[in-house]
Amino acid sequence: MSVSSLSCQVELLTGIEDDHGGVTVLDLKEPMNTQQFASSLRASLSHWRLQGKKGVWIKLPIELVNLVEAAVKEGFGYHHAEPKYLMLVYWIPETVNTIPANATHRVGIGAFVMNDKREILLVQEKSGKFRGTGFWKIPTGVVNEGEDICIGAVREVKEETGIDTEFVQVLAFRQSHKAFFGKSDLFFVCMLRPLTFEIQKQELEIEAAEWMPIEEYAAQPIVQKHELLKYIIDIGLAKVDKGYAGFSPVPTSSAFSSNQSYLYLNCKDLSK
Amino acid sequence: MSVSSLSCQVELLTGIEDDHGGVTVLDLKEPMNTQQFASSLRASLSHWRLQGKKGVWIKLPIELVNLVEAAVKEGFGYHHAEPKYLMLVYWIPETVNTIPANATHRVGIGAFVMNDKREILLVQEKSGKFRGTGFWKIPTGVVNEGEDICIGAVREVKEETGIDTEFVQVLAFRQSHKAFFGKSDLFFVCMLRPLTFEIQKQELEIEAAEWMPIEEYAAQPIVQKHELLKYIIDIGLAKVDKGYAGFSPVPTSSAFSSNQSYLYLNCKDLSK
Repeated sequence: MSVSSLSCQVELLTGIEDDHGGVTVLDLKEPMNTQQFASSLRASLSHWRLQGKKGVWIKLPIELVNLVEAAVKEGFGYHHAEPKYLMLVYWIPETVNTIPANATHRVGIGAFVMNDKREILLVQEKSGKFRGTGFWKIPTGVVNEGEDICIGAVREVKEETGIDTEFVQVLAFRQSHKAFFGKSDLFFVCMLRPLTFEIQKQELEIEAAEWMPIEEYAAQPIVQKHELLKYIIDIGLAKVDKGYAGFSPVPTSSAFSSNQSYLYLNCKDLSK
Repeated sequence: MSVSSLSCQVELLTGIEDDHGGVTVLDLKEPMNTQQFASSLRASLSHWRLQGKKGVWIKLPIELVNLVEAAVKEGFGYHHAEPKYLMLVYWIPETVNTIPANATHRVGIGAFVMNDKREILLVQEKSGKFRGTGFWKIPTGVVNEGEDICIGAVREVKEETGIDTEFVQVLAFRQSHKAFFGKSDLFFVCMLRPLTFEIQKQELEIEAAEWMPIEEYAAQPIVQKHELLKYIIDIGLAKVDKGYAGFSPVPTSSAFSSNQSYLYLNCKDLSK
């Protein structure tokens, strides 16, 4: 609790300084009176202005929703929200606002999984754009927050079809805009090698799943109509038949974090 | 305005139905009394529950911040926020909540630009991790909302150094997590061909910019220490000297939208 609840004196909010001349108020947890909060916020802003601070951030847990209006009335704007909190921001200086934007992209995967009989793994979905059309599509899904593309692709195939796979490569990717809530989408076409072959489809979202000869898949009218779907077949077959080189995940360390992360690159051409 | 301001009768909110059995309240624009809103929302939720609706969305412009607390008290949670609005959501059924997640990734680019003298285009930044270290780095930046990677890379190089370039390929990309506000980062290493050579550095963010022999760049201690930075040199030189094939942007149409979007793929291996 950062604000005195008894004294008439206005107590300042406690902020953590960042590397960019900003300050973040993080420790608001206890219930707080709206008027007290507004007074403290006003006094704190004066204080930070004198200190030459730039961006002021307030992370308000959803339990403190009663304070949102007061912050906006003091001039704060929304920056982003997640289910458990709202992040508000205020830019103090007269100079250009250099506050970084919120996340802009969702990341999805499409899985090209082919067995030795040149059959590919396909599903029919219970909802979404192709519901009820009888269209057989490759398994697709959205990568979870914090999940690597090569992990997410294997997980989605397992969840939808019960098939275990090994990740091979990213064969191509597509960036599209205004995909959902005005945000953009990066869709990675991935080649995976099947390790098991017996399908056990997921009941909630999947209507049907099967191995289908690639020619039969390609002959579907929806595939014929859509350039992207035709490209996926061409690229997948180029991988299987002609040594098409995609990008392979290589674990690497970064200058910005001690965590390992994956760099995806054309290993074949790099080792030439 | 969806709520009657005179009658005692509670007016229902107007919602737009979506393909997933949900409903979105979008037309809230006029100032509204908090109590009236709460009553209307409660009555509307009962109505939608009887109709078997699933996800209920309310998009509240920041001007209507006075209604946020009322919505949360009725059981709504935050889904996401942008500077101008807050999106709230309520899942009606007893079944598993299938509400799609918010955007999870920021997209950045690093630009590998080399001239005929085997000099690469480098900058020193005024702020950030390398400030004051004397480290020369390739131009990097964040792709704007709605901007294509191949467009953003050219824009960033022009902004930081004044150099005009032509986009060639994505050579590799790295996915990392917990990069900012808990979100993930996709960083695309791009090869660009310089069209002009006279540097005019941007004053606000760039301390210095120059063309430097690649060996001199590679000899910097920070590069030697960081695997990712070494990889970027190896891949860039493999592109220049050994015909490394990256992913080229190909405009394509999608099954999901009439907009053109870019598919990035290994053109060389596809046309074999």
